[in-house]
Amino acid sequence: MLRPHDNLRVDGGRLWASIMAMAEIGATAKGGSNRQTLTDLDREGRALFRRWCEAAGAGVRQDDMGCQIARRDGLNNDLPPVVVGSHLDTQPTGGKFDGVAGVLSGLELLRTLDEHGITTDHPIEVVNWTNEEGCRFAPAMLASGVYAGVFAKDFAYGRTDAEGRAFGEELARIDAVGDEPCTPRPIKAFLELHIEQGPILEAENVPIGVVTGGQGIIWLDVAIVGRESHAGTTPMDRRRDALVAAAGVVTGLRELALAHPPGVATVGELNLGLGSRNTIPGSARFTVDLRHPDAATLAQLEEGCRHLVAQESGGQHCTFTIDEVAHTPPVVFDPLCIDAVRRAAEDLGLAHREIISGAGHDAFYVARTAPTSMIFIPCKDGISHNEEESTEPNEVEAGANVLLQAVLDLARGEG
Amino acid sequence: MLRPHDNLRVDGGRLWASIMAMAEIGATAKGGSNRQTLTDLDREGRALFRRWCEAAGAGVRQDDMGCQIARRDGLNNDLPPVVVGSHLDTQPTGGKFDGVAGVLSGLELLRTLDEHGITTDHPIEVVNWTNEEGCRFAPAMLASGVYAGVFAKDFAYGRTDAEGRAFGEELARIDAVGDEPCTPRPIKAFLELHIEQGPILEAENVPIGVVTGGQGIIWLDVAIVGRESHAGTTPMDRRRDALVAAAGVVTGLRELALAHPPGVATVGELNLGLGSRNTIPGSARFTVDLRHPDAATLAQLEEGCRHLVAQESGGQHCTFTIDEVAHTPPVVFDPLCIDAVRRAAEDLGLAHREIISGAGHDAFYVARTAPTSMIFIPCKDGISHNEEESTEPNEVEAGANVLLQAVLDLARGEG
Repeated sequence: MLRPHDNLRVDGGRLWASIMAMAEIGATAKGGSNRQTLTDLDREGRALFRRWCEAAGAGVRQDDMGCQIARRDGLNNDLPPVVVGSHLDTQPTGGKFDGVAGVLSGLELLRTLDEHGITTDHPIEVVNWTNEEGCRFAPAMLASGVYAGVFAKDFAYGRTDAEGRAFGEELARIDAVGDEPCTPRPIKAFLELHIEQGPILEAENVPIGVVTGGQGIIWLDVAIVGRESHAGTTPMDRRRDALVAAAGVVTGLRELALAHPPGVATVGELNLGLGSRNTIPGSARFTVDLRHPDAATLAQLEEGCRHLVAQESGGQHCTFTIDEVAHTPPVVFDPLCIDAVRRAAEDLGLAHREIISGAGHDAFYVARTAPTSMIFIPCKDGISHNEEESTEPNEVEAGANVLLQAVLDLARGEG
Repeated sequence: MLRPHDNLRVDGGRLWASIMAMAEIGATAKGGSNRQTLTDLDREGRALFRRWCEAAGAGVRQDDMGCQIARRDGLNNDLPPVVVGSHLDTQPTGGKFDGVAGVLSGLELLRTLDEHGITTDHPIEVVNWTNEEGCRFAPAMLASGVYAGVFAKDFAYGRTDAEGRAFGEELARIDAVGDEPCTPRPIKAFLELHIEQGPILEAENVPIGVVTGGQGIIWLDVAIVGRESHAGTTPMDRRRDALVAAAGVVTGLRELALAHPPGVATVGELNLGLGSRNTIPGSARFTVDLRHPDAATLAQLEEGCRHLVAQESGGQHCTFTIDEVAHTPPVVFDPLCIDAVRRAAEDLGLAHREIISGAGHDAFYVARTAPTSMIFIPCKDGISHNEEESTEPNEVEAGANVLLQAVLDLARGEG
């Protein structure tokens, strides 16, 4: 069944030009962007976004966390809006696309509707969430977290950067404090387009990732204690080698994750203390990062990891401690939103696959308050948070067309 | 066949008291000694040793590396001396026995012969080798190394400590520069008594280690380079995890060493750079310490290690480099000296076993110039280079009696 506007398409060249223009604000020598949240450059980026939205006929308001909300009224403004968005702030050595592709695909959606004089049943809003990156003011996804009630506004305002400046002060300094409270409002659906930040879509040559949820994450700190002794005089069978035990855990964790797809397990930090090349390591401290989209399987991974640490420590007559330092449950997106994205990709003849988000996104917090899904587009070599972050114009265009069609679908009144 | 003086025994109580008295010079709060080479405390320790030797009727001379040589003339002073000795210098947080037990067992030998009015055919000398530890002036075994021609005297004199003071200046400052050049002289046999610095004798409840040689040592620096990527978004099968590769090497090296007894393999240092708990490690640098008493097997261990690094790196699509930073061939002691030690232990009814030295000793360098062996005695928990280093009075006494009897054997004229 052909629906109205099924043939509508975004202007890919215009969208690409806007992404490139935004990247000029805070452009780095290596082709990336340094436009950290609540800096003068962020203020400049926000102002540009506002001008672009207003030129496309959308009013822009701000909430008290500095989130910009561009709105295109619908035929029935009593209906909850369909909301899209992401973030314009970047890492210090960030790329051009992380967050920006999502916000400006929303802008392109507004421009396309404006250009063609289309008014949807539900209103449409495009949000630029403040401080997604968390690199200047930890934690990440601060504004969407406040929106979802995960963090209190006072907590957010009190966060300080490396120079001791408070989030709240910087927000006021760049005139980003709006009247509207950053709290949940009725939303029909929320969609976030984002680069994958992983290698799957590129490797499989699939342009669209239909994001069904986000992995749950468990972070453990492990310390294994054996005994320092002389590398020359201590026979192999009399050692209490903390590194040998830790290495067994690293190897075993990889097997464990491979046995529980699509789970991942990573030891990112490992420290032996001072160490000496002719001393058997007496202690090893390391981190464990476990992720799985299914809560029960994630719990199995943690149990398996604890078993591994006990087994490998025991094998080296070492003692151990395990501290759980973070536990984020999996995010499961809304079936109707996921379907809207999938159908849009299908209707556009774009290859697509379901995918789980490995990284965190504003959509994860929004999902606690409204039906939500995401659209992933490929990025070169899976590289992100890096000035070399890259994606192709046709890939962004394809994603923006999926966003456009999914929003048109979701913004259709039911009557 | 009973030989003369087979019933002669050292005075274990006197020996123990001397060790305790020496330990008072530089005594640390935790029961160890800090009597680093060429310090005022070392000068004090040397003076005490000289007084003790002279009181036992032995003249003491010095060579130009500061080595003290106490001599008890023989019946035929044209015959080369039987030499025993070790070192009186300690680590900054050293124990009471490392080195000291060997030098003062030699002193006790002189005292016992003096007390009983025994004159051997060959002269007997007891040497206190300068700077065995190498903690103040690297490298270790500096004077015995100069003696054996491994290091030039000028090189040794130019070595500086952490405060920039030169070895040669400090040697002169404490009046330790003798006229005799520190170069090889005819020696009938050299024996060094030393604590094992390892756990084998204690664990097997064997009081005497008949040391047949020293392990060869190969030191490698390994660097494995993969690619940093996001711990959440990078599937297990698309990772280039340098730590997973390194862990495979650590685990594999242990198997390799166990398959080549009595070889040992140790990764003492491992560094991932800055690291982050949610980033897959892009590089891992680590050290490898391989030891084996047989040169051919040591070469096999190195080959096996290189194969492991290549295999594990390949498994993670990582590149690698391996640098050999040191290669010390195995030391093989003299069969006649080894026999003299073994026979002495047997005659004394002391349980004994052949043992390979895992640590380096002055005897290793002396062995390049004269027939040499060593006597090991147990030390508690194999702990050394530590203020907790400990051995029992009866263990030192047993070792000193083996030294006495082996020296009497070796100092017997052949006519």
